Amino acid sequence: MTSFNLLLLPGDGIGTEIMAEVKRVIDWFGARGVASFEYEHDLVGGSAYDAHGKAVSEATMAKALAADAVIFGAVGGPKWDGVPYDVRPEAALLRLRKDLALFANLRPAICYPALADASSLKRELVEGLDILIVRELTGGVYFGEPKEIVTLENGQKRAVDTQLYTSPEIERIARVAFDLARARNKRVASAEKRNVMKSGVLWNQIVTRVGKEEYADVALEHVLADNCAMQLVRRPKQYDVIVTDNLFGDILSDVAAMLTGSLGMLPSASLGAPDATTGRRKALYEPVHGSAPDIAGKGIANPIAMIASFGMALRYSFGLVAEADLLDRAIAGVLAKGLRTADIATAGTTPCGTTAMGDAIIAEL
Amino acid sequence: MTSFNLLLLPGDGIGTEIMAEVKRVIDWFGARGVASFEYEHDLVGGSAYDAHGKAVSEATMAKALAADAVIFGAVGGPKWDGVPYDVRPEAALLRLRKDLALFANLRPAICYPALADASSLKRELVEGLDILIVRELTGGVYFGEPKEIVTLENGQKRAVDTQLYTSPEIERIARVAFDLARARNKRVASAEKRNVMKSGVLWNQIVTRVGKEEYADVALEHVLADNCAMQLVRRPKQYDVIVTDNLFGDILSDVAAMLTGSLGMLPSASLGAPDATTGRRKALYEPVHGSAPDIAGKGIANPIAMIASFGMALRYSFGLVAEADLLDRAIAGVLAKGLRTADIATAGTTPCGTTAMGDAIIAEL
Ligand SMILES: CC(C)[C@H](C(=O)O)[C@@H](O)C(=O)O
Ligand SMILES: CC(C)[C@H](C(=O)O)[C@@H](O)C(=O)O
Repeated sequence: MTSFNLLLLPGDGIGTEIMAEVKRVIDWFGARGVASFEYEHDLVGGSAYDAHGKAVSEATMAKALAADAVIFGAVGGPKWDGVPYDVRPEAALLRLRKDLALFANLRPAICYPALADASSLKRELVEGLDILIVRELTGGVYFGEPKEIVTLENGQKRAVDTQLYTSPEIERIARVAFDLARARNKRVASAEKRNVMKSGVLWNQIVTRVGKEEYADVALEHVLADNCAMQLVRRPKQYDVIVTDNLFGDILSDVAAMLTGSLGMLPSASLGAPDATTGRRKALYEPVHGSAPDIAGKGIANPIAMIASFGMALRYSFGLVAEADLLDRAIAGVLAKGLRTADIATAGTTPCGTTAMGDAIIAEL
Repeated sequence: MTSFNLLLLPGDGIGTEIMAEVKRVIDWFGARGVASFEYEHDLVGGSAYDAHGKAVSEATMAKALAADAVIFGAVGGPKWDGVPYDVRPEAALLRLRKDLALFANLRPAICYPALADASSLKRELVEGLDILIVRELTGGVYFGEPKEIVTLENGQKRAVDTQLYTSPEIERIARVAFDLARARNKRVASAEKRNVMKSGVLWNQIVTRVGKEEYADVALEHVLADNCAMQLVRRPKQYDVIVTDNLFGDILSDVAAMLTGSLGMLPSASLGAPDATTGRRKALYEPVHGSAPDIAGKGIANPIAMIASFGMALRYSFGLVAEADLLDRAIAGVLAKGLRTADIATAGTTPCGTTAMGDAIIAEL
């Protein structure tokens, strides 16, 4: 039986509570005998800072590099708003992405039929919505140098960030998007600001070339990032796969997620390149939502996005596609039965807490 | 009688048609005798490129610099998609902003009650919406150097854009936002990505300091730009004034505009600093929507955003506040009577074209 080695990093806020439910789901799949899952816990984000003054320790990084998949909760909270920039909770996430070379961030924005009314958009605009945002995750303005604040001679300050992309970085993320579109509706929209940014010009050229030379069967459209944000609000179902850079991806994927009315439901996968010999790729899975410090510790957080993130690990890291489908169906089944955590509760549904939602999903499995 | 000197730059696509309606409105105010308006036309964008190979000529720039206000239509279209980067239609707009030092871009996102149903959001979320986005317009990644694509020795390409802000640039835009908030609901939300960008860290510090030292009566909140985009979709009425940088402002103002369901209705103002001796400030007024090449020349474009842009000129450049209010009321009045161009038509309203809408607004005045 294949054995997989997971690193669980619950992080801050509701991270611990929702990770507890994921563990039960992992154990359920382990007990079923499809594979053997071994896991270890560690601190990350604010809780790691509190324990040893860094957002992620070297020991944790070593474990993450060795793991088949990292399952990540959420980091941050007002408690750590004042900590030095280099050790702020988010630094852990950025370092994991960079050091594990997780360049491809997959963020599905799916509107569960049972939840369409929770969207702020009119039901008909979001019902059946199924978009996949493919965000470049290790380049762009997130990591480009110089990145600094300098004090000038006259006492004024000057801050610089650098948006930087090379052609190979754009090629590989384009291929990920085109490959995924092939298994979907064969449509890719590439979003940039070529009318203002040179990185947008290069992005546009490279995506166009990769599309033409390697994916003639996939329809490619180019859209300016500002217009893409607008179109997502206006008529989101026009999109299938959207590929975009790190910063635009951050914003566009949040807009897309919010449209679904299912923010507490949405998982994400961050993938590296497949290893040349083993074919395995480093990967980190995390919910799209944050650490929600305002509801932490109350047992009311929605564990579904976190559990669905493990579902993405089954699919993309372990090749257990049937099991991933089973888990997705169990989640949909529980929703169809009317069970709801507070964030997605509507009139006529049955309210429940974090653990009860975990119970229900396991029962449904 | 005070005399004002306007430069009208209709641009491309529907620009010409909607500018024709603005001229009639300007003439109406001129004939009424509140001030004397002199205006001149010129080419800009793709049409300027067709005429003399540049998106804006030096002669036009000289006129713009001398004008009391520039009234700008819209530029661009598929016809010019392949022109060299430096002479693309958008270059005209960027040069006007930069050379006239129009650092403060005011973009109101107002949901006209008569149009609330045109929004993709549920009516109750947008009815009565009145947000003002204050976007920094002459800094950031739009103008920072280096901005280039270089070919490396191995044949790969590398594109760089530079996000750059100095403390005085942030101070002055913060003051514009706080001043405007004072005349509204005294709430400012400042959006950046301080968790990833050093320019976001500096932005946050400076806005905080200006708020504390000079505007203690205005409530200030900080929001991450990705979260701000989400919150705009989720519960837009939580905002009053949003102040943000050039690139985030581009996206957030488009999202806010689209929420209102009134994209064809929304004006914008781009203002410079008041002159130390005359108190006059350079200014450019333009609709938020683009050149809409697909409907150009058909006489069906909505002229309201363009006319309302002249309304902002009355208010911010000419100090004719009563006249600006009169024009805004005339627009609301025509809408309340049920007249609609195609973009905002709904069941039970009276369809009309560009000129008929202009007629109706003048009749209402
Ligand atoms: C926490 C933050 C650094 C992060 C980002 O900006 O990438 C988050 O917003 C995300 O989208 O995963
Ligand atoms: C046309 C383009 C250069 C411009 C911008 O990006 O600023 C436009 O999108 C806008 O918002 O005015």
